Amino acid sequence: MWRVMETPLNCAEEQQPPPALPASWSTVTPQESPADRNDKGNAVGFVLVHAGAGYHSESKAKEYKHVCKRACQRAVDRLKAGALAVDAVTAALVELEDSPFTNAGMGSNLNLSGEIECDASIMDGKSLRYGAVGAVSGINNPVLVANRLLSEAQKGKLSAGRIPPCFLVGRGAHDWAVNHGIPPCPSEKMATKFSLSAYKRNKHKMELAEKVDTGFNHHSKKRRQASETENGSGLLDTVGAIVVDREGNVAAAVSSGGLAMKHPGRVGQAAHHGCGCWAENTSTLNPYSTAVSTSGCGEHLIRTMLARECSSAMQCEDAHQALLEAMQNKFISSPFLASEDCVLGGVIVLRCCRCSDAQPSPDIQAILVEFLWSHTTESMCVGYMSAQDGKAKTHISRLPPGAVAGQSLAIEGGVCRLVNTPTTVD
Amino acid sequence: MWRVMETPLNCAEEQQPPPALPASWSTVTPQESPADRNDKGNAVGFVLVHAGAGYHSESKAKEYKHVCKRACQRAVDRLKAGALAVDAVTAALVELEDSPFTNAGMGSNLNLSGEIECDASIMDGKSLRYGAVGAVSGINNPVLVANRLLSEAQKGKLSAGRIPPCFLVGRGAHDWAVNHGIPPCPSEKMATKFSLSAYKRNKHKMELAEKVDTGFNHHSKKRRQASETENGSGLLDTVGAIVVDREGNVAAAVSSGGLAMKHPGRVGQAAHHGCGCWAENTSTLNPYSTAVSTSGCGEHLIRTMLARECSSAMQCEDAHQALLEAMQNKFISSPFLASEDCVLGGVIVLRCCRCSDAQPSPDIQAILVEFLWSHTTESMCVGYMSAQDGKAKTHISRLPPGAVAGQSLAIEGGVCRLVNTPTTVD
Repeated sequence: MWRVMETPLNCAEEQQPPPALPASWSTVTPQESPADRNDKGNAVGFVLVHAGAGYHSESKAKEYKHVCKRACQRAVDRLKAGALAVDAVTAALVELEDSPFTNAGMGSNLNLSGEIECDASIMDGKSLRYGAVGAVSGINNPVLVANRLLSEAQKGKLSAGRIPPCFLVGRGAHDWAVNHGIPPCPSEKMATKFSLSAYKRNKHKMELAEKVDTGFNHHSKKRRQASETENGSGLLDTVGAIVVDREGNVAAAVSSGGLAMKHPGRVGQAAHHGCGCWAENTSTLNPYSTAVSTSGCGEHLIRTMLARECSSAMQCEDAHQALLEAMQNKFISSPFLASEDCVLGGVIVLRCCRCSDAQPSPDIQAILVEFLWSHTTESMCVGYMSAQDGKAKTHISRLPPGAVAGQSLAIEGGVCRLVNTPTTVD
Repeated sequence: MWRVMETPLNCAEEQQPPPALPASWSTVTPQESPADRNDKGNAVGFVLVHAGAGYHSESKAKEYKHVCKRACQRAVDRLKAGALAVDAVTAALVELEDSPFTNAGMGSNLNLSGEIECDASIMDGKSLRYGAVGAVSGINNPVLVANRLLSEAQKGKLSAGRIPPCFLVGRGAHDWAVNHGIPPCPSEKMATKFSLSAYKRNKHKMELAEKVDTGFNHHSKKRRQASETENGSGLLDTVGAIVVDREGNVAAAVSSGGLAMKHPGRVGQAAHHGCGCWAENTSTLNPYSTAVSTSGCGEHLIRTMLARECSSAMQCEDAHQALLEAMQNKFISSPFLASEDCVLGGVIVLRCCRCSDAQPSPDIQAILVEFLWSHTTESMCVGYMSAQDGKAKTHISRLPPGAVAGQSLAIEGGVCRLVNTPTTVD
C-alpha cells in the first residue's frame, strides 16, 4: 500500500503565500474504494502537467485547470493499470492535445498560411531515448507519433542495417505516422472557432503593423497594441507533462502548435532534443532521476536548451535553489539571449530518489518526489496528482505583483513522498 | 603582419606517427606575393574543414582531399577580404556542398522515395545565434538558408511583434529561402550519376534484406553483406567547417544529405542545435573560444549532443586529453547510447585564446589556435589552412590497424599561433 505526504518548498521568490496544501496529501492514508484494493500494489507514481506558460485570463482559468485535471487523471489511470512512465506521460499529453483550449493538437495556433503544423517530443528516462515530430499537419495527437518513433527505434535497426529515425518532420512525419497506424485527421477538423477567429484577428493586426512599417506613422498606437495583444494571445504555447512510475522511472513529453502566425515549416522547442523536454533516470553519475517539460517562446528555449539545463541543475542538493539559479542564470540572464530584453518561458520539473529513511520497516520502499514549476511569463497553469490521490490539484501560477514578465520569475513547488508498504504488511 | 607556427599535439591514442608538419607552418614568415601586401592587416584567421566521417576508399581519397583544399581556400579568401568567421565558414560550406563527391547539397544521398532532402546549420560564436534548415529539397546550398535565418533573426522582431524563426523545415524552408533570394535548384539537377546508382543498389539490397526478414533464411549471407555495404557507403555523411577570424570570433557550420535510404522527413544532427555544430566566443565563464562540427550517424550525434559536449569539454586545460575523454565518455561509452554496439561519429574541434607571451613587443597580439579531429569511423577526411598559408593541408585520418570502427577512436591535431604585428612595426 502506498502513502503520500506533501510539504511545501520555500516559495520566497514568489513573494506570495504558497498555494494551499492539498488536504488529501497529508500524513494520513488517502481514502480508498473497494475497487482500488485490487490494484493497490501498482497504484503508485506521480504526474505534473502544464497547459502552457503565457497569460491565462481569469475568465479562461477554469477551462485550463479542468484540462490539467483530466490530463493528470489519464496519467494516473495508466499508472494504476501498471503502465510505465513513458506511457503515462503520453496519456496525459493526448488529453492536453485533445482540448480545444490548449495550443497543441486540436485547436492549435494557425500559421501564416492558415494551416496547423504541430511539434511534439517525448523522452524516456530509462532508455534515454527520444522521439520527436516537427511541423506535422493532419495528425490530431502528435505525441503519439513521437512515442511511436521512440518505441520503434527501441526495436533496433531496420532492414539492410538502416538506423531508425528519431526525428521526422512535415509530410514525411505524417506519412510515417499513418503507415504505423496513427489515424490522420483532416486539418479543418483540427482548427476551432477560436483558433480561426484568432487567425483572422492576427492577420488584420499584421497588415496594420506592416502598413506602419511602410510609413503610416499615425498607426503607431495601433501597432503597439497589435504587438501587445500578439504577445498576450500568441504565447499560450506548448503543453507538457512529467511522470515518475512505480519503478522510479521518469519520462517527459511536450506538444505545441507553435507561435501564432509562425512561418510554415517553423519548428519550435517542442520538437527539439534537450529544449522541449528531458528525462534521465538516476545513474552512477546522477543521484536523482529528473524530468522537465518547458513552455514559452520556442526560439528562447531552443537557444538556451532549457529542458536539459534544468535537468542538469536538479542534481544539486537544494532543488528550489537549483531551479531558481538555472532560471536566472541559464535563461533570464543567459548569454545566449543577451540581445533579448524579454525572455519568455516556463518549466515544470521533478526529481526523485529512493529514501533511505523509509518507515516503519526496512521492507518498505519510499520514493521522494520534489516537484516545481517556474516561469517568466505572466502566468502558467499546472496540475499534479499522485496515483493515490482521489483527484488532481491545479493551480494558475502568476508573477508577483509589480514583477515584469520576461525579466522576473515565479517559482513554486512541493514534495511528495511515495511509500510502498508491501501487501503482506498491514 | 601575421606569423604562423605549428606544433603537433600528443597523438598517443592514434598509435601512429602524427601527420607530417606542414613545412609552411614554421616559425618563418610565409612567402608573400606583392598582391598580398595590400590586405596584410586582414590576412589572419584559420579554418578546419571535414568531408565526413565514414569510410574513404584510397581510390576516392584524392577527390575528398581536393574538395577540402578548395573549401579551406574559399574560407581564407573571405577572411583575407575582411569577412568575419560566420561568413568564412559559410563560404567553406558552399564549396563542400557544391562537390558532387560529398553527401551534402549537390550529390547528396537519396531518401527512400528517391528524393534529396538536406539538413544544415550554422552557429555564430559572437552572437551565440544559430540558424538551421531540415529536410529541405530543391535548394543547392542549404547552408545559405541557415546563414540567412541567422542573419534575419539578428535584425529583431517581425511585424506585429512576431519572433523570427531559427529553424525551418521542408516545404516551408524552401519557400522562405526562395522569398529571401536564395535560388531554387531542380531536384533532378542535385542528384548525380553516383547518387542515383547508389540509390538503385541500396533499393535492391533492401528488397533482398526484406525478403530475408519474411522468412527466406537462405539469403542470410546476402543480408549481412547488404548491411555491411550500407554502413560502408551510407555513412560518408555530413560535411562541416570551423573558423576563427582576425578578431578571434569563432563560427561553425555543418551540412548533410543524411543517411542513404532515410525515411522522408527524417532530420539528422546537421539541423539539430547542439548536435551538428557549436561555436562560443570566450566569455567571463569560458577562457577559450571554441568551435565544433560533427559528422557520422545522426541519431547517435543527436542523442549525445556531441557538438556541445565537445565544445564544453574544450574549456579544460589539456585540449587533447579533453577531447579524448569527451569522445570516450560522452560518445563511445555514453549512457545515451548504452544499447548501441557500434557508435559512429567524428568531430573537428578548435579552441583559441589570446596569448599572453606575444613577442617581440607588448603591441603584438597573438591568438593561439589548437585544432583537433577525432572519429570512431574507419576514416575521416579533414583539411586546414591559416590565412597566411599558401595552400591548405589535407589528411585522411584512419583508425589504427586492428581498431574496431564504432568502438575505438583516432585523435590527431595541431597548434597554430597567429601573431599580429602592427603594420607600423618593421
